[in-house]
Amino acid sequence: MSLEVIDIARISDGGSSKPQIQARVDLFKTWDIPSGSKILEIGCGQGDCTLVMAYLVGEQGHVTGIDPAPLDYGSFVGKQKQSHPTTIVLTIQAGAPITLGQAQDKLKQSEVGNRITFHRSDLEGFLDSSASEPLYDYAVFARSTWYFPSAEALTPMLVALRGRTKYLRIAEYSTDIQGDIAALPHLLAAISQAEFNSRDNNLDRDDNIQSIITPQKILELTLKAGWVFKKEDVIRSPEDQEDAGWEVGRVLSEGYRIRSRSYSGASRQEYADALISAVEESKRALGPNPKLRTLPTWLGSWA
Amino acid sequence: MSLEVIDIARISDGGSSKPQIQARVDLFKTWDIPSGSKILEIGCGQGDCTLVMAYLVGEQGHVTGIDPAPLDYGSFVGKQKQSHPTTIVLTIQAGAPITLGQAQDKLKQSEVGNRITFHRSDLEGFLDSSASEPLYDYAVFARSTWYFPSAEALTPMLVALRGRTKYLRIAEYSTDIQGDIAALPHLLAAISQAEFNSRDNNLDRDDNIQSIITPQKILELTLKAGWVFKKEDVIRSPEDQEDAGWEVGRVLSEGYRIRSRSYSGASRQEYADALISAVEESKRALGPNPKLRTLPTWLGSWA
Repeated sequence: MSLEVIDIARISDGGSSKPQIQARVDLFKTWDIPSGSKILEIGCGQGDCTLVMAYLVGEQGHVTGIDPAPLDYGSFVGKQKQSHPTTIVLTIQAGAPITLGQAQDKLKQSEVGNRITFHRSDLEGFLDSSASEPLYDYAVFARSTWYFPSAEALTPMLVALRGRTKYLRIAEYSTDIQGDIAALPHLLAAISQAEFNSRDNNLDRDDNIQSIITPQKILELTLKAGWVFKKEDVIRSPEDQEDAGWEVGRVLSEGYRIRSRSYSGASRQEYADALISAVEESKRALGPNPKLRTLPTWLGSWA
Repeated sequence: MSLEVIDIARISDGGSSKPQIQARVDLFKTWDIPSGSKILEIGCGQGDCTLVMAYLVGEQGHVTGIDPAPLDYGSFVGKQKQSHPTTIVLTIQAGAPITLGQAQDKLKQSEVGNRITFHRSDLEGFLDSSASEPLYDYAVFARSTWYFPSAEALTPMLVALRGRTKYLRIAEYSTDIQGDIAALPHLLAAISQAEFNSRDNNLDRDDNIQSIITPQKILELTLKAGWVFKKEDVIRSPEDQEDAGWEVGRVLSEGYRIRSRSYSGASRQEYADALISAVEESKRALGPNPKLRTLPTWLGSWA
């Protein structure tokens, strides 16, 4: 555990766990973004990555985080997640869930708060507004693309960013578990969630995985939008990063199975059931109380 | 390699490879079916398992293989598969493909041919016909259930078999790769093929995997049909069993990708593409020319 992770955890004051912070420090360092950079973060959510980047970018840097989600949207706090009220209620555990807006406000009041600006907006609307700088150093998607309903949603954003940032950085989970069997439950849970959200007329915004967008697809779309690819990296997730456990827990909850069976034809439901079984078995194969590994992250750099 | 595998391979005369024979010998021995048994095999295909059972069941035994597929349906010969003429042509390699009927005829002419009867029929039709014995010792599904369009297709068969056989045996691939990362490409290829065949109005009878029917589902359906569960086993596949390579090769063929994109909405196509990518990556992660492992087999016994 590095000193900076401990220090960021202190600033976060319980908002982010150390493994979550470590995972984002790893992203930032692999991207090689220099101190003093002006960063635009697309899909910042409650600001986990925003905080880490604001810390690491130093006093001369700044991070503008944008997200179109309503400020009263439920947010992760520690291991808790508040379910969106309009969707089927899945496992909600006791805890102290706070909203997106509350989480962002808290970060604004922290000692790096003056390096952070949040806007509730989609990217195109934000870039057209007076709130946007004419030019950023870096535009960053920090594992936010799987939350888009489809890869096609990326295209207008990639086009809109041309000329508005010097560099582009995208990080997203990789479906290549690289021989680490402890990451298989997370992979299969992602396949299961993406299955549901790829059905016609089904979309549960409460799933953290709406669609699986592969590096191959990201490379294809960035190329089309005129970005020049510079390099790619793959990094493993910190051993105790909780995302694998969250996503697997979600898929194995009773509410999830009910939801899975509430829509679509019999054949599709059977397929969905088989995916849930596969998640279950992949977890059981790791033994009692297994330590699940979060998927590796693929990182791309463009200019 | 046991002597019996070598001897069955000799009788098969190129119809089945040694690993295919070994895999079926392993099934039969785990099921613990005694010599002299009268076996009804549902979904016998070209007769790979029929031959093995006919050999192992001895001179006093008999195997009746039924399959509703047309006798001119293309069959595996070695590593070759002839594509069904009405579907998109996938990878067809040079070789000497023979039809289902030709393969069955060849086995009938072999030295264990008098222990084998083939019928082109579905199960219910066969049991109603005069061709059927009033009572068999064993009814056997030897990895034929994933070829059914859905698990529901099993139900009437399980009901029809009540009172017509003393014992029931079902073997099917398990989605639990049990920590063997070399089996991951086969698992993901199965998920991909089942995805296509679970779309409304899509069904490609040329896929060996039409639906993933889990042990859990089989246990549920057999219980409903009144069967008493006796035991379950899981066995690994022989190291060089070719099925993993066949299914992965199919999914990674150009024709398969085209088919995948030819139907359904954009979101579903993206999902299907992501599955193909995941298969690709899982294979690449094993290194150049990897040895793919075929999924383990789950075996259930009922009376």
